[in-house]
Amino acid sequence: MKLLEERILKDGHILGDNILKVDSFLTHQVDFSLMREIGKVFAEKFAATGITKVVTIEASGIAPAVFTAEALNVPMIFAKKAKNITMNEGILTAQVYSFTKQVTSTVSIAGKFLSPEDKVLIIDDFLANGQAAKGLIQIIEQAGATVQAIGIVIEKSFQDGRDLLEKAGYPVLSLARLDRFENGQVVFKEADL
Amino acid sequence: MKLLEERILKDGHILGDNILKVDSFLTHQVDFSLMREIGKVFAEKFAATGITKVVTIEASGIAPAVFTAEALNVPMIFAKKAKNITMNEGILTAQVYSFTKQVTSTVSIAGKFLSPEDKVLIIDDFLANGQAAKGLIQIIEQAGATVQAIGIVIEKSFQDGRDLLEKAGYPVLSLARLDRFENGQVVFKEADL
Repeated sequence: MKLLEERILKDGHILGDNILKVDSFLTHQVDFSLMREIGKVFAEKFAATGITKVVTIEASGIAPAVFTAEALNVPMIFAKKAKNITMNEGILTAQVYSFTKQVTSTVSIAGKFLSPEDKVLIIDDFLANGQAAKGLIQIIEQAGATVQAIGIVIEKSFQDGRDLLEKAGYPVLSLARLDRFENGQVVFKEADL
Repeated sequence: MKLLEERILKDGHILGDNILKVDSFLTHQVDFSLMREIGKVFAEKFAATGITKVVTIEASGIAPAVFTAEALNVPMIFAKKAKNITMNEGILTAQVYSFTKQVTSTVSIAGKFLSPEDKVLIIDDFLANGQAAKGLIQIIEQAGATVQAIGIVIEKSFQDGRDLLEKAGYPVLSLARLDRFENGQVVFKEADL
């Protein structure tokens, strides 16, 4: 997605060896107009596949996911990273380790929001080692629902998440793919969309 | 907001003495069309006030906040509930106690996203005791920015958050105001919008 790649080059910041900070438009401050375009691009790709739900994980996935859900005209569900006292019935869970935050979280979705008839599009802001997506897949499949595909805003192609997910049989479609960082600049691989 | 009150009556669930669960359209599964209407209603109210930023707190505030930001054509910032290793410069923080989750969190916003010229509209999904809004106000004022108003999707009018914020001089505008729970039903107070 050219618009996204341009924005990453303009406003992204590389930290250390493998962190791209995009907090001015995606992960902290959010540019709704870019989110809207992201939603449109995902929705065009998946319009014919009968998606019934968009699933993401709090918090940075919510903005791209809700605009994708709007463009597909389906509900969006965001998985929670910790159990909440108001969530007390039929909770589906998975363990997810975050390398960024260096903690293992119990990720959960209330089972009542997913059924065996559901065809789910997972949307997330980043794909690195694939742990978050793997956790979401486990939860969705516990409900008997089908994971149709995984839509990623920014893929760190130098980490093994995509490989892990594709080998397990899940299509991954990324709007921007980071091949490497070179002299403080992002070098992209060809994106899927 | 009539549409919201009707939705609460239809899909909200009362748990115990003071919890209203709205996880089928706001706090877990998200109805984008309701979020869009919520954004429009807030934006109409605040269109003439020169709002430059919408600020919320992860995670359930993000969906209503991003649609409000879109309707006002300004960026949205969501405060983080825990420090992140990719956030390392000029972080503004406040301590917030959540009665729902029974934990104290350090809430933070990167200072670079707020300036003394900013007029901020705070948006949040719930107002109960006002602790989250109070934390956001502290952060915004640390940056020298002005809190113009606080827009709330669902106010628990039987708790003291609104009183606390209004006494401190901040206008509160709520789309639905819960007066009490009676025989397992929500009884509303007149809403602000």
